[in-house]
Amino acid sequence: MAKTVNVGLLGTGTVGGGVLMVLDKNKEDIAKRAGCEIVVKKALVRDKKKIAKDVKDFPVIFTDKIEDITDDPEIDIVVELMGREHPAKEYILKALANGKNVVTANKDIIAKYGEELFAEADKKGVDLQFEGAVGGGIPIIRPLKSCLAANKISSIMGIVNGTTNYMLTKMSFEGLSYAQALKEAQEKGYAESDPTADVGGLDAARKIAILASIAFNARISLDDVYVEGIEAIDTCDIVHAADLGYVVKLLGVAKNVPGEGISANVYPVMLPKMHPLASVNDVYNAVFVNGDAVGDAMFLGRGAGRMPTASAVCGDIIDTARNILHDSTGRISCTCYEKKKLCPPSKDMSPCYIRLLAKDRPGVLSAVAAVFGAQQMSLANVVQKNRPTPDTAELVVITNSVSKESLALALQTLKALPVVEKVSSVLRVEDPSLA
Amino acid sequence: MAKTVNVGLLGTGTVGGGVLMVLDKNKEDIAKRAGCEIVVKKALVRDKKKIAKDVKDFPVIFTDKIEDITDDPEIDIVVELMGREHPAKEYILKALANGKNVVTANKDIIAKYGEELFAEADKKGVDLQFEGAVGGGIPIIRPLKSCLAANKISSIMGIVNGTTNYMLTKMSFEGLSYAQALKEAQEKGYAESDPTADVGGLDAARKIAILASIAFNARISLDDVYVEGIEAIDTCDIVHAADLGYVVKLLGVAKNVPGEGISANVYPVMLPKMHPLASVNDVYNAVFVNGDAVGDAMFLGRGAGRMPTASAVCGDIIDTARNILHDSTGRISCTCYEKKKLCPPSKDMSPCYIRLLAKDRPGVLSAVAAVFGAQQMSLANVVQKNRPTPDTAELVVITNSVSKESLALALQTLKALPVVEKVSSVLRVEDPSLA
Repeated sequence: MAKTVNVGLLGTGTVGGGVLMVLDKNKEDIAKRAGCEIVVKKALVRDKKKIAKDVKDFPVIFTDKIEDITDDPEIDIVVELMGREHPAKEYILKALANGKNVVTANKDIIAKYGEELFAEADKKGVDLQFEGAVGGGIPIIRPLKSCLAANKISSIMGIVNGTTNYMLTKMSFEGLSYAQALKEAQEKGYAESDPTADVGGLDAARKIAILASIAFNARISLDDVYVEGIEAIDTCDIVHAADLGYVVKLLGVAKNVPGEGISANVYPVMLPKMHPLASVNDVYNAVFVNGDAVGDAMFLGRGAGRMPTASAVCGDIIDTARNILHDSTGRISCTCYEKKKLCPPSKDMSPCYIRLLAKDRPGVLSAVAAVFGAQQMSLANVVQKNRPTPDTAELVVITNSVSKESLALALQTLKALPVVEKVSSVLRVEDPSLA
Repeated sequence: MAKTVNVGLLGTGTVGGGVLMVLDKNKEDIAKRAGCEIVVKKALVRDKKKIAKDVKDFPVIFTDKIEDITDDPEIDIVVELMGREHPAKEYILKALANGKNVVTANKDIIAKYGEELFAEADKKGVDLQFEGAVGGGIPIIRPLKSCLAANKISSIMGIVNGTTNYMLTKMSFEGLSYAQALKEAQEKGYAESDPTADVGGLDAARKIAILASIAFNARISLDDVYVEGIEAIDTCDIVHAADLGYVVKLLGVAKNVPGEGISANVYPVMLPKMHPLASVNDVYNAVFVNGDAVGDAMFLGRGAGRMPTASAVCGDIIDTARNILHDSTGRISCTCYEKKKLCPPSKDMSPCYIRLLAKDRPGVLSAVAAVFGAQQMSLANVVQKNRPTPDTAELVVITNSVSKESLALALQTLKALPVVEKVSSVLRVEDPSLA
């Protein structure tokens, strides 16, 4: 082997430790596949006296000074796995400025500072790779940028948050309540003690922003993504969905709405049972793409965790090493070469499911229907599901395709109606037959 | 744009025409993504007077002489989409020898002559890409060679033949007989008038040979693949499978059997309903991979057809163009860097389902059980399903994990038993609980 490619690792926690393990365990195969030996020369740790047991015996120089890595001329690739925004962003910028190739799995940074980082990488002609930032171990960034590069993508949607998918699976298959499912996810370590970013959809929003940016070659930032979480989903919504032939999933959905622009949303969606995403369960993630040549394609795998994410990071390291060997770093740079407008809420259409609690008295149904009528929303189905109290009735409404704007206005009016006690939950329905 | 990359197209049939269309329709995006304009300069046709209507108006120089393309110094990439082995193989070799990069979707050639072709490509330092040869539009070759390159793959299996998947889906969902399903597949153009290569498993065998070669970094040839088709599958097998919680699929299955070598098989398999491959229906294909870091991952899409295959071919063209621009062709060469032995049939294990027709008389069950016992095969389940005639009984036997060798011997003995009228069908069962 002619050359060794040296890695400087920033962070030796869950994923960083996994990267050390994978590069060590499979080093012979990796060397043959990459065409060179890949060696982690140095690793940045917060405290040299507190290095994790499963990490400290690797033959790596541990340091607590970033300059030891970014200024080391022998280091070819800086792998950032510290998480959070700061100082990770500054360290990545420093590494790029010093001509290092960078691999990261940090979705926060790519979603928020992608433009600045890619500009620096382009200026220096180095690689900035981030397969691990979306979908854990699932190959999706490189397939989009290479294998599907001849397609015009019309939509990309995915189950990109394992915590919520685990919870919804438990609610679907075992009838657990939302609170029980959350507790179980926390006990298994799938949910943080503060689960807001997962159940509220923010984590999924970061990922769909990244995926949309790549799919549509235009920078979609976190602020461009409309977000609803699964907090309002009740087990009865899942039962109603099943009755109608649907499965409930939290999806990131980005579409190129012809003539209107890009829409990017995270919300709970009822998917037809036969949809490939409908059978993606537990902590599995999957990304579903439609392109004008390929048609539908889906990528499935473990969306998080030490080893799956390490798989993606090490794949990027190997790819970067090949570029180093062939003097072709920067070979695939930022693909956001266009500015595209966002689809206005008045043009972002989807059928909807609305469950509401109303007074059980004559005229309620027509009052509710009138609210939708005022927004030109046509209803596909209105069912009274049950009577939680003698005085109240639970109504489930399925609309045909409606705009996000009309829906918001209708919900606002509904909530103000004296006969409506509560709008319990709202889900989108992914069903062309209702469009 | 600094440079134009010129393509010479061999074949303007289904896929070749699709490539012309995709490169034309999306040319602006493709130029931005590739970093250069991609132009089909010349196309080889059999007869210049008989160029297909949807092809003849493209601004391409049509020729019937291969040298016009392989000897043209302006042509950077030769794209072979003629199909069959000859003269496609000779043309590819000629192109490589002349220093051209080659993209092909020809699974026959890659499966049979891969070694020779890659040796020539390596010698010349050019690309030889073939994403379209397996799984149509599904990105699988590049994800295996790059994204998952840090993994030791333990198994790769897939639904890699759309014709048989369409037939089995129709038999499952609509209760069609084998003959009806085949007829419908032929009417829809999914099956050839001579469907042998599809229903007999040969087409799937070529693809699993290619996938196994990449997954295990060792050349697995078509002759190394054990093949059974779906000709013997009856609708009742699918019903029995459903009763047991399984779905019937024709799978290509390649495994790295620890200590024994690589096993590569194509056969009908009963998959648990919850397995991600179980819900891949109609003409969709999917490849399911297990790696030591990534865990399980699956890639799904349209496994054949003009535009999906053109998507894969154009993705390869774009990737090659990027290599040309960065002077890094040959960046990822043949990855079969090892010789691995094949797993002997005596060590290639799997649970099995066997349906047989026997005389309905006392002692038959014990005679049948004795045959399995003589091969040390333990039975998980024996059920009498029905009595097609007053004198005969249909038995369904589910075994625990047995070797291919033992199974073959047991079947041979069974068929010779006077009380056994017919061994109607044999399927493998992918179920760890029976291992």
